[in-house]
Amino acid sequence: MDSQRSLWAWGLESQEPTREQLQQAASRLAAKYKVNLVPAAPPGSDVIELRPPRARVPRALAAFTSTGTRTRAFHSYGHSFRDRVRKFHGSYPNPVDAVAAPRNEDELSAVLDWCSSKGYAALPFGGGSSVVGGVEPPQSVPGAVSVDMSSMGQVLEGDTVSRAARIQAGTFGPAIERHLKPHGLTLRHFPQSFEFSTLGGWIATRSAGHYATNQTHIEDFVKSVRMVTPSGVWASRRLPGSGAGPDPNRYVAGSEGILGVITEAWVRVQASPRRRASAGVEFPSFAQAAAAARAIVQTKLWPANCRVLDEGEAQVAAGMDGSRALLVLGFESADVPQDGPMQVALDIARENGGMQNAGDKGAARGQDAVALWRRSFLEMPFVWNTLLGLGLINDTFETAVTWDRWSQFHEQVRAATFDALRRVCGGGMVTCRFTHLYPDGPAPYYTFTGLGKQGSEMEMWAEVKAAASEAVISSGGTITHHHAVGRDHRPWYDRERPDLFAGALRAAKKALDPIGVMNPGVLIEP
Amino acid sequence: MDSQRSLWAWGLESQEPTREQLQQAASRLAAKYKVNLVPAAPPGSDVIELRPPRARVPRALAAFTSTGTRTRAFHSYGHSFRDRVRKFHGSYPNPVDAVAAPRNEDELSAVLDWCSSKGYAALPFGGGSSVVGGVEPPQSVPGAVSVDMSSMGQVLEGDTVSRAARIQAGTFGPAIERHLKPHGLTLRHFPQSFEFSTLGGWIATRSAGHYATNQTHIEDFVKSVRMVTPSGVWASRRLPGSGAGPDPNRYVAGSEGILGVITEAWVRVQASPRRRASAGVEFPSFAQAAAAARAIVQTKLWPANCRVLDEGEAQVAAGMDGSRALLVLGFESADVPQDGPMQVALDIARENGGMQNAGDKGAARGQDAVALWRRSFLEMPFVWNTLLGLGLINDTFETAVTWDRWSQFHEQVRAATFDALRRVCGGGMVTCRFTHLYPDGPAPYYTFTGLGKQGSEMEMWAEVKAAASEAVISSGGTITHHHAVGRDHRPWYDRERPDLFAGALRAAKKALDPIGVMNPGVLIEP
Repeated sequence: MDSQRSLWAWGLESQEPTREQLQQAASRLAAKYKVNLVPAAPPGSDVIELRPPRARVPRALAAFTSTGTRTRAFHSYGHSFRDRVRKFHGSYPNPVDAVAAPRNEDELSAVLDWCSSKGYAALPFGGGSSVVGGVEPPQSVPGAVSVDMSSMGQVLEGDTVSRAARIQAGTFGPAIERHLKPHGLTLRHFPQSFEFSTLGGWIATRSAGHYATNQTHIEDFVKSVRMVTPSGVWASRRLPGSGAGPDPNRYVAGSEGILGVITEAWVRVQASPRRRASAGVEFPSFAQAAAAARAIVQTKLWPANCRVLDEGEAQVAAGMDGSRALLVLGFESADVPQDGPMQVALDIARENGGMQNAGDKGAARGQDAVALWRRSFLEMPFVWNTLLGLGLINDTFETAVTWDRWSQFHEQVRAATFDALRRVCGGGMVTCRFTHLYPDGPAPYYTFTGLGKQGSEMEMWAEVKAAASEAVISSGGTITHHHAVGRDHRPWYDRERPDLFAGALRAAKKALDPIGVMNPGVLIEP
Repeated sequence: MDSQRSLWAWGLESQEPTREQLQQAASRLAAKYKVNLVPAAPPGSDVIELRPPRARVPRALAAFTSTGTRTRAFHSYGHSFRDRVRKFHGSYPNPVDAVAAPRNEDELSAVLDWCSSKGYAALPFGGGSSVVGGVEPPQSVPGAVSVDMSSMGQVLEGDTVSRAARIQAGTFGPAIERHLKPHGLTLRHFPQSFEFSTLGGWIATRSAGHYATNQTHIEDFVKSVRMVTPSGVWASRRLPGSGAGPDPNRYVAGSEGILGVITEAWVRVQASPRRRASAGVEFPSFAQAAAAARAIVQTKLWPANCRVLDEGEAQVAAGMDGSRALLVLGFESADVPQDGPMQVALDIARENGGMQNAGDKGAARGQDAVALWRRSFLEMPFVWNTLLGLGLINDTFETAVTWDRWSQFHEQVRAATFDALRRVCGGGMVTCRFTHLYPDGPAPYYTFTGLGKQGSEMEMWAEVKAAASEAVISSGGTITHHHAVGRDHRPWYDRERPDLFAGALRAAKKALDPIGVMNPGVLIEP
């Protein structure tokens, strides 16, 4: 289940940075910040020491449940900044006690029964890419069992007539695409975690993926769900649409493992795109690029890609000079040429101050920027692998806000984050891009970076993260557009969601999980 | 609140059929079915007798609460077939005891407090257009209070930047459009009940409206909701998108008044379309028209209108000869010419056996059919007004099913409905159209008609309805695509929704409505 995954870096063990790469990164960083930096040594997995498991695995579960040190360590964290720091330093004060990887719903039920009978926390685990403390054990439980779904990782059924597939929850992104491809189909859900995240994880966290406009979140593609709860199996009917009561699938989407463990889903798939049009348009300012993006999305052209990079992002991620913002546009279709809608979008961009595009002299530059941005997007987590242990505070957060509030929102969030960075690190950088766009508002994605003190990263990060989150919530945004709530976003989520909704959700959880073993502390107070 | 609405017919009192119109309809029907028919006399509202109100209105609520006979009668039924028959015959064995029309959330809270303290059922009432027993009092409660929301019927706020509006739940369709129009905006939610239904009713029942593809249900346009529950006010944050926990708005959408009373919502609105393209394409068969529709919706052209009428519907509603099916296509945009996507759709239709379209000789015929269909759609409820009291069994039901099941599903549902009609009426007519289309399946809408016995309509109808519903559920459909569940669809809904979901919903209701006064018996057992 985790044979080749790195214990500390994003990706596989074979993708871990070498000692040399870590030293080079340290030199680059030292030069950039004009400081001396002690290069970090990559952690050794052989030195990890964990508290002895508090749970004794029943014989009936032994065939698929492990208490091995490496497996327990791997399943004790996700991939948040805090997780990365703790993993890099081999710090596991509160590890899971066992890792169960059930191979079917019966085995999964048996695991939940075990947890219910002992009062152990059951922590659903897909690919372990949570950046919000969604797979980490809570404090003060008598035991914690990670429920790894990777042994339920098959594409079970395809329906080319309805363009749909029945897929087990533990199936990773690449396996889904591999199985669909021979049929000319694709799910086209490509979060940054694509390679190391699963369908079940996407649904449980309302992941957003490839599509920048129109249907963006995974639940827009979910037709039905099976979920094993401590009270039995929840199975919704596979339907293209319905108006019968509240949508049961929307009770599951975003439930983050507090109601049960998703085991499979019918999802809508697409014919693979063969007609594509993409372009990059430069703007004198982020504000102008945002205005253009608003006009495009409100025209309902529904581009697959419509990302806006502020001046800093465009420089870092797309090789531009730091004075201009970039709008990345992409249209796609299996059958229909996309030059028409692209031309309309480019016209709108030009009317809104866009300076170069595919029709102008700057075309090559715009196109290059698109390609660079794509590569940068996929490589980012691996770059970050090399920056661990150097005291660098670097993280991202994402939100969504209505257009009428956007400008002031951005000012406040940016200022609050930058002020915190200055307090904590003496300065730093805050950049922003739009990852997803709605007719009524953008989903801004912020990246912040500052050089902190080696060994104090977690406290320093926490101060910046809190300042940013506070600004997001007090300025009218959501604490997360697609990274989920987990444990880390709880203080701000508690202010965002309706109190009565929390009460209703708590009651629904109690009905499905009477003992309260499912991911306690995630989303709501147990 | 109901000053001009008819007590028995769809529409206003001024739109009631006259005695002459009823007689003409009787003659037409008698000729069509070759029988003798006693023309029905229009009911008189002065002869209605109701059980005395079981509730005494507290002084604090008196200013906005009535126990008048006419008002109580009007609020005791929706507009289902059963309701229409009962209203026509002035039969009110179980009327509501009082009708409260609160003017603000405080007054609404006071009404719910009153109901909670007395154990009265509180029945949210928008426009009274429910066709599923959604506004009717349950049996065996000590009292029933209809909560009429029409005094909270204002468009409160507009946001032209984000294209959104804050609208009170009791606002009727035409008032919404009237307020948005000066800003060049429109909600474009046009269910058949548009004129006599409200935003709150639409959200509570997951109404589907104008758009045949892509976003179709009202909840796709809802950004945030306020709802008064017996436990206080539920208010979600206005956001364009979020991934923070299960979507609280999706707990409210489709809750059919069992959790609380929706008081207002922020909804996404659109720029009014100025560019339009519409066409009608004839097909040799319904199956071929359906195949064309599937190809168009799977190409993701997202036409605003993409309705398919079977041979019978095309004859009755669009003046065709009964041998051909009709595909009605419409594209619209505020800014972008729609001839391009229309041409692609017409090409697909032609490849799939479409015979005439806007580019052919038959264009005029196709276009006429579109216009006729539109008019017929809007006039249908008024036509039905004239057919009351004559023993006619006529009703519609709607569902959704995946494409892979569609053909067999249609065969079974049609056969079951027709067989029942034959048993009950000695024969009749069953027609079908697609009102909404998804890449993974259509939403078929069936109409059935047969001549029953004057005075036995309700029992005869019930047998046909049950046979049709049974076939819908056993063949893999949903019991409702946009008419809601109410009381009437309960037996089949109970088989459709996950049992554990019902448990979760019941628990959520209990948290918000501890005494169980909110629309008891709708959606789930109290």
